[in-house]
Amino acid sequence: MPTLYHHPMSTASRFIRLVLSEYGFQVDLVEEQTWEKRREFLSLNPAGTLPVYVDDNMRVLCGPVVISEFLDETHGVLKRDRRLLAEDPFQRAEIRRLTEWFLQKMEQDVTKPLVRERVHKLLIPNGLGGGAPDSKVLRTARGNIRQHMKYLSWLSGSRQWLAGDRLSYADLAAAASLSVLDYLGEIEWSEFPIAKEWYQRLKSRPSFRPLLAERLRGLTPVSHYADLDF
Amino acid sequence: MPTLYHHPMSTASRFIRLVLSEYGFQVDLVEEQTWEKRREFLSLNPAGTLPVYVDDNMRVLCGPVVISEFLDETHGVLKRDRRLLAEDPFQRAEIRRLTEWFLQKMEQDVTKPLVRERVHKLLIPNGLGGGAPDSKVLRTARGNIRQHMKYLSWLSGSRQWLAGDRLSYADLAAAASLSVLDYLGEIEWSEFPIAKEWYQRLKSRPSFRPLLAERLRGLTPVSHYADLDF
Repeated sequence: MPTLYHHPMSTASRFIRLVLSEYGFQVDLVEEQTWEKRREFLSLNPAGTLPVYVDDNMRVLCGPVVISEFLDETHGVLKRDRRLLAEDPFQRAEIRRLTEWFLQKMEQDVTKPLVRERVHKLLIPNGLGGGAPDSKVLRTARGNIRQHMKYLSWLSGSRQWLAGDRLSYADLAAAASLSVLDYLGEIEWSEFPIAKEWYQRLKSRPSFRPLLAERLRGLTPVSHYADLDF
Repeated sequence: MPTLYHHPMSTASRFIRLVLSEYGFQVDLVEEQTWEKRREFLSLNPAGTLPVYVDDNMRVLCGPVVISEFLDETHGVLKRDRRLLAEDPFQRAEIRRLTEWFLQKMEQDVTKPLVRERVHKLLIPNGLGGGAPDSKVLRTARGNIRQHMKYLSWLSGSRQWLAGDRLSYADLAAAASLSVLDYLGEIEWSEFPIAKEWYQRLKSRPSFRPLLAERLRGLTPVSHYADLDF
């Protein structure tokens, strides 16, 4: 069985778990604490980032873009209307643009700083960068959430799915990011009813169940985290 | 004619200019100062990043990954042994991994902070974030160059081109980044003879000429910048 190195609070890992599950792949999950900089892990991915996918022939694929493009080329292309990338090149461009938006822009602006301050600092020993969260970083990241939620509301209000008529990588990337933030109770859903309706549809998919069932040691999610009707 | 919004000191812009030129495209270049956050530019790309490609039908493609994947799908695929992505999915994965390495990891570690401190701060008015470079940021970024140059030396020493037997996006992404750093005189070429030989090959290609001829107002490149025999 292929192996996926991941972390429960990594947006990119959650994104690839959703993609694999939508396409019916089974993988062995290995939790990696990237801040430990394990030599064996760095020999798989010298960039030290997650997720990393190792197939049955020990061939290695690093990072969400490389893995998702590979899965599209080798599997998605056969899935017809369940393909998570489109056939038309411009439509593919729009899916890729939005996927990057959530995996990179929203990640830099919001998810990465919040996870670093609220999760990693709990898990990392004090001398190695752990400790109390930096309230200034938290404030800035929280200030940025609103703009991303507005953009998400606009997208989900004007299209069936975020990038068009079909579920795509863009939806899974956005939902991966939101599920991390929602675990931490960072989303004021009452302010964003249209985005909420979209997220509810995503959350109800079988591919989402394993993510909703997962719990981080020492950090309980908000009470509505796993509720499909929140 | 299509339009490319770019900046002379943006790695991602240089990468796409090289790709377009290798594939024989002519484009109108429009220089964009992203820090001005022009409303018209943000309506093309709400992420506010470069490059942005607008085709003859005013269809918009944002960012180096989206543009390069689109160009591969619509043109590269017809180029046979001049294609800048491979046919084999694993080989494509390796090209994408390295392209991302230079456009993102090296960019974050080295090129982006050096360009921000040494170029943008010159161009941006004082009240809006311009001013003297932060020497601590410069020191950290310069410390990171060595590791990236070592990795580049290893890749160019063990393979014909960075990702394998053929010139690919990986070479153009790496060369784009290096050309920005070289303009600023940040690379100690005598320490990296193998990487230098590889860069010399890249620099001699016709696609490179426009980049080498370009000059930034108020910032002269190092004397060897445009020399093919440096």
